[in-house]
Amino acid sequence: MSQTVTDLVVHDIRFPTSEQLDGSDAMNPDPDYSAAYVVLRTDGPDPARGGPGQEGEAPEGHGFCFTIGRGNEVMAAAVEALRPHVVGRPVPRDAAALGDLYRDLTHDSQLRWLGPEKGVTHMAAGAVVNAAWDLAAKLAGQPVWRFLAGMTPEELVSLVDFRHLTDALTPDEALAVLRAAEPGRAERTGRLLAEGYPAYTTSPGWLGYDDDKLVRLAQEAVAEGFTQIKLKVGGDIEDDVRRLSLAREAVGPDIRIAVDANQCWDVAEAVERMTALAPYDPYWIEEPTSPDDVLGHAAVRAGQPVKVATGEHAANRIVFKQLLQAGATDFVQIDAARVAGVNENLAILLLAAKYGVPVCPHAGGVGLCELVQHLAMFDYVAVSGTREDRVIEYVDHLHEHFADPVVIEAGHYVAPRAPGFSARMLPASIADHRYPEGPVWQARRTPEETGR
Amino acid sequence: MSQTVTDLVVHDIRFPTSEQLDGSDAMNPDPDYSAAYVVLRTDGPDPARGGPGQEGEAPEGHGFCFTIGRGNEVMAAAVEALRPHVVGRPVPRDAAALGDLYRDLTHDSQLRWLGPEKGVTHMAAGAVVNAAWDLAAKLAGQPVWRFLAGMTPEELVSLVDFRHLTDALTPDEALAVLRAAEPGRAERTGRLLAEGYPAYTTSPGWLGYDDDKLVRLAQEAVAEGFTQIKLKVGGDIEDDVRRLSLAREAVGPDIRIAVDANQCWDVAEAVERMTALAPYDPYWIEEPTSPDDVLGHAAVRAGQPVKVATGEHAANRIVFKQLLQAGATDFVQIDAARVAGVNENLAILLLAAKYGVPVCPHAGGVGLCELVQHLAMFDYVAVSGTREDRVIEYVDHLHEHFADPVVIEAGHYVAPRAPGFSARMLPASIADHRYPEGPVWQARRTPEETGR
Repeated sequence: MSQTVTDLVVHDIRFPTSEQLDGSDAMNPDPDYSAAYVVLRTDGPDPARGGPGQEGEAPEGHGFCFTIGRGNEVMAAAVEALRPHVVGRPVPRDAAALGDLYRDLTHDSQLRWLGPEKGVTHMAAGAVVNAAWDLAAKLAGQPVWRFLAGMTPEELVSLVDFRHLTDALTPDEALAVLRAAEPGRAERTGRLLAEGYPAYTTSPGWLGYDDDKLVRLAQEAVAEGFTQIKLKVGGDIEDDVRRLSLAREAVGPDIRIAVDANQCWDVAEAVERMTALAPYDPYWIEEPTSPDDVLGHAAVRAGQPVKVATGEHAANRIVFKQLLQAGATDFVQIDAARVAGVNENLAILLLAAKYGVPVCPHAGGVGLCELVQHLAMFDYVAVSGTREDRVIEYVDHLHEHFADPVVIEAGHYVAPRAPGFSARMLPASIADHRYPEGPVWQARRTPEETGR
Repeated sequence: MSQTVTDLVVHDIRFPTSEQLDGSDAMNPDPDYSAAYVVLRTDGPDPARGGPGQEGEAPEGHGFCFTIGRGNEVMAAAVEALRPHVVGRPVPRDAAALGDLYRDLTHDSQLRWLGPEKGVTHMAAGAVVNAAWDLAAKLAGQPVWRFLAGMTPEELVSLVDFRHLTDALTPDEALAVLRAAEPGRAERTGRLLAEGYPAYTTSPGWLGYDDDKLVRLAQEAVAEGFTQIKLKVGGDIEDDVRRLSLAREAVGPDIRIAVDANQCWDVAEAVERMTALAPYDPYWIEEPTSPDDVLGHAAVRAGQPVKVATGEHAANRIVFKQLLQAGATDFVQIDAARVAGVNENLAILLLAAKYGVPVCPHAGGVGLCELVQHLAMFDYVAVSGTREDRVIEYVDHLHEHFADPVVIEAGHYVAPRAPGFSARMLPASIADHRYPEGPVWQARRTPEETGR
C-alpha cells in the first residue's frame, strides 16, 4: 500500500559551541555547530509494521545539513525551495524511487543555476535525500548500512548519476566493482556486527585548546583504545611544531597522528610547513589548501613526504573524480552532508574503489558521526570489501542530542542496529536550540536585542 | 566627510521569460530570468557633489545576483545574511575600503562553511561587492571601468585576495602585469570612447527557437554589424548539425559561429559531438562539460579540433587558476555576478593576462551585459592592453528595465559614460516584477493560488 509524503518541516537548530572553542581550527575560529534539520512527514501508519512507528503513528524521515552558525537560515531557505519536489510524492521505498528523488532534487532546471551541484543548494538536496533514506530504511526495518548492503549491484548502480563521471567510471565499471564485492557480504556483515569499524579521534587537537589540555586528551584517547588521533595545525609554525612534538611525546611512536590545516595554506606554504612537521611523523596532512584546488593538492602531495587527505569540503562527485584522476590525495574523506546525500556518496565510494584509494570519512559537527558510519560500513560490506587503512573520524560532541547516538568501544564504531540513518534529534534538543527563539538562545540575548 | 551605509534592501525580481523560450538551452529549458537585487542606502547627500544624487539626495549603490527563477528567494536570504558586514560601515570610496569589504564578505568565519567561496553565498557576496563599487564609482563621478582604470597598479593589487593563488600568480607578478600596461592607458581610453568594444550576439541561437527564426535572426545579426554569433547545441546530434549548417549557410564563411553546450556532455561525448560539428567551422565550443571539471575541459580541448571556452559557471578564482594551469581553455569567460564581484574578477583578469589567454565575458540574463562591459573595458585599458580575439557576449533581453542600458552600435558595446556600474533597475520595473507580489506575477497566479 502506498504512502505519501505530506509535509517537509525545517528547523534552524544551533548549539553555542564557540563558547568553549570546541571545533576551533585555522579557518574556523569560532563555530557554533548548527543544523538545518529536516523532517519528512507521511500520511499514516506503515501497514507493513502493523502498528505505531518510532515517532508516532506515521513514520517520519529525518535528515540535516551541518553548518557552523551564521547562514544556517540560508540553508533552511534552500531546503524549503525543494518542497515542491517532495511533498505529495509517494514515500520512496526502493532504489528506483530513491534514485528518482535524488535526480529530481539535483536537476531542478531553475535551482541548478545556483550551484550547479555545489554549496548551499547542493547541501540542501543532500539533507532531503538523506531524510528520504532514513524513512525508507525505517520502513524496511533496517539501519541504512544494511538496507544499502541488501541491494543488488544493479539496484546500487541505478542510484548513481553518472553524468560527468564516465571518463573515470562507467556504469559497467561500477557494476564490476560491486559484483567483485558480492561474495563476502554476509561474512563482512557478521564481522562488523561483532567488531565494529575503526575510529580515530579529533577531540584532543582543536586549535583553541592549550598544551596541557592537548596532552591530557591525547593520552586519554590512547587509553580509550584509539590508535589514531588528529591535531589541527595552521597557526604559527612554532606552535604547530610544538603541539605536534608534545602530542608525539605523549602518545609514543606507534599511535598515528594526523594533522589538519583546514585549507589555510597556499601550495608552497603547505610544502614548507609539512617538511618542518615531517620529523614528528604525521600520518596525513588533511586539507592543506583550498578544497577546490585539485592541482594544488597534487602539487602538495608531490612536494613533501607526508600523505595527503581531503574531501570534506569537496563540492561534488566531479571534484572527487578529478582528485582521483590527478593522483591528488592518498585518502578520500567523504562527508555525509556536504554532497547530495547517500546517492552521491555512493558514486564517490565507487570512484575510490576503482582507483584503489581508501575512504576515511570526515565526521564531527552535529550528527555527522551518526550518519557517516552507515556509509563506511556499507562500503566495507558491499563496495571496497576491506577496512584496511580505513578509519572514521570521531569527535565526542553533541551526541547526547540524538535518539540513536553513535557508540564507540575500544576505538571502534559499534555497528548501528536500529532502523534508519541514526539521524533523529531528540525533541527536547530541537525545542531548546531553535534559533533564535529557543530558550538556549533567548538566554544569550543582550538587553538591546530583547528590547528590555 | 565620511558617510555611512544605513541600510541594505533586497528585492526578489523575476521576469517570466520562460513563456517565450528566450534563454533556453540544453541544461536550462525554461528559465525565468531573475535577480536578487540589492540596494545599499547611505545617510545623506554627497558633500563632494554639492547637491542631490541620481537617486535622490542620498547616493545609493545597486547590485544583483542573476538567477533563472526558483531559488531567487534563497539568494535574497543569502544577501540578507551579509547585512551585519555592511550596514553601519563607512561608505567605501577607495581601493583600501573596497578591498576590506570584499575580504570581510568572503571570509566571514561562519558563513564561509556554506561554500567556501562558491554557490549561493559567494554570489551573494558578489552582489554586495558590486553594489559597493557602483556606489564608490558614483561618488567618484565615473563609470566603474574608468574608476578602476584610474587606480595605480599598487591599488589594484591591494584589491585582490591572493590566498590559494600564489602557485600561479603572486602579488609581484600581478604588479608586473599592471605596470606593463600602464603606459598606454590614456590612448586606449580614448579609443574605447571613440570605437567601443567588440560584441557577439547569442540572440539567434536559443535551443527553443525553430529553424526559420534561427536563420532570420542570424542574418539580422550580420546586417547589424556583428561578426560573431553563437548557437546553443546539445540536443539531438542531427538537430545540432542541421542548425549549425543552416546558420553557416545563412551567414557565410567569414562570420564566426561559436557553439555552446551549457555543460550537458561527458568528455567522450563532447569529443564525438564536436568532431561531427567541426566541418561547419564552429569558432569555439563553450561549456562542453561540467564547469567544475578542469581535467575534463583539458581532455576535450586535446581531443577534438575546436577551441574551448568556459568560465561563466566557474565558481571562483581557484577554478580559473586551474583552468589556466591545466591549459584547459582557449578563452576565459568571466561572469560579473557568479564570483565575488569586481575584486575577484580582477584576480581572474590578472591570471588570464599572465597566462596570455583572452577574456571573452559571459553576459545576457538580467543586467549582466550592463555590468560586465565595465570589466572588459577596464581589462583593455589597464590589464591585457588589447582587444584582439576578445568579444563581449550580447543578448538583447531586458535592457529596457535599466536606467543606463548598454548601447550596441555596429556590433560594438559603446563605452558607458554615466557614473556607476550601469546596475540601476528602473523603479517601475522593480515594482512590477517583485515575486510573488508584483502585478506581473499576480496576473499569472492560478485561482487555487489566489484562493479565488
